[in-house]
Amino acid sequence: MSVRAHELAPLAGELEANLSMINDAIQQAVADEIQLLVLPELATSGYYLRKDEAERCALSADHPLFEQWAKLLTSDMVLVVGFCEQGDGELFNSAAVITQAGLQSVYRKTHLWDEEQSLFSKGKHAPPVVQTPAGAIGILICYDLEFPEMPRSLALRGAEITVVPTNWPLVARPAGEHPPEVIQGMAAARASAMAIICCDRRGTERGHTWTQGTAIIGSDGWLYGNTDASGRLDTVINISAERTRIGPLNDSLHDRRPDLYTEH
Amino acid sequence: MSVRAHELAPLAGELEANLSMINDAIQQAVADEIQLLVLPELATSGYYLRKDEAERCALSADHPLFEQWAKLLTSDMVLVVGFCEQGDGELFNSAAVITQAGLQSVYRKTHLWDEEQSLFSKGKHAPPVVQTPAGAIGILICYDLEFPEMPRSLALRGAEITVVPTNWPLVARPAGEHPPEVIQGMAAARASAMAIICCDRRGTERGHTWTQGTAIIGSDGWLYGNTDASGRLDTVINISAERTRIGPLNDSLHDRRPDLYTEH
Repeated sequence: MSVRAHELAPLAGELEANLSMINDAIQQAVADEIQLLVLPELATSGYYLRKDEAERCALSADHPLFEQWAKLLTSDMVLVVGFCEQGDGELFNSAAVITQAGLQSVYRKTHLWDEEQSLFSKGKHAPPVVQTPAGAIGILICYDLEFPEMPRSLALRGAEITVVPTNWPLVARPAGEHPPEVIQGMAAARASAMAIICCDRRGTERGHTWTQGTAIIGSDGWLYGNTDASGRLDTVINISAERTRIGPLNDSLHDRRPDLYTEH
Repeated sequence: MSVRAHELAPLAGELEANLSMINDAIQQAVADEIQLLVLPELATSGYYLRKDEAERCALSADHPLFEQWAKLLTSDMVLVVGFCEQGDGELFNSAAVITQAGLQSVYRKTHLWDEEQSLFSKGKHAPPVVQTPAGAIGILICYDLEFPEMPRSLALRGAEITVVPTNWPLVARPAGEHPPEVIQGMAAARASAMAIICCDRRGTERGHTWTQGTAIIGSDGWLYGNTDASGRLDTVINISAERTRIGPLNDSLHDRRPDLYTEH
């Protein structure tokens, strides 16, 4: 399966410019015969927003835009994109899963980082596993990935790939090390033998810099390549039915001992 | 707190030679004023054993040896060492936690790797969190660490440090990457803001080579140094009461949403 994570540089509060950027990214992916296209967290709105900007950029899940994007896709294609959502009178940091058939699922981020808590409500539901032409796709957003229960839960519920739109603020790390969030992703991928695709953002936004840590991680826990100058990371991933079989006598999911995983 | 992981090279089936090696390691640690000394998995017996060898090397938890080791320790010192255990008519791949006051706890490995399953029974109990002069210490053995629920469970139950006697068979990895098990440890440490000390073994045993991946990981998820030529990795670690406070508005354990971590 042909996969692309496209590390865009959304502009804070500039909905129209961001929608145009997303539209271009979809059209490029169609031209390049990508099957699974992943775009960053809050791609429609940017990240470091004032409340009034977030409200002005917010889209409801029934906004015609999602159907417009669906119409751009080919029949076997899946798009995952982060957006600022208005719903039930609240704002959410959400991700949409879209196929040619339309909007398939919206996930509302459940673990909010830092000042997001003053803009967004926490999602009230577990992340979805969405059956798509590109397989069973689990969805997380950014900080969600740092809770090992989250990718594990998706794998146990049948996710073959977990997709993570993200905006990772740059943090210090020792020389030669991957960003810490990428290490979390590599460990989660290997633990559950599940591919994980993290699409970060780029650019500088209101003085904040980003990790630009976009990573496609195989079900063996290792990384595929690097983004090109335009922020695109393309690869082909294979989802083997035998992927949890990690040794002649071992299976990463069946070897679990859930009765022992006590919190008390 | 002064910590040492000492990567020994136990000899398969040679109990007396291994006990002597362990004795030496304890005496060195005492001389060097180490507070927490961690030795490998199955340090008393070696790893690639025939059943009769495992039986011959096996020690019961009431063996006088543990009290002899206890007497070597200073009053604020803790020793964690893997051993081949005979108990309840079965063999276990176990780890002992020993202080000057004697044997404090025995943990029987609950996730068995590969041919271990033909030698050992699976432990039936969750790993302990042991209150010691070196803090609240959680215990895992080798493959246990690859189940993210295991270190998480220890952190939620109050472990300040998790100690992992291990024997990691060498596996291929991309150039420049840490061993996969170390990546699992780094991710687990960061996710729960808990230091993790993995003591691997060295030497070649019956044609099998080892990762020699001994790693001391801080509660921030980053590694401390490398072993010296004798297999010792010494460092000082500090256990901050504020270690789970990972941002002005975030806490790695309190931000959890356990009601959403469904397996179905």
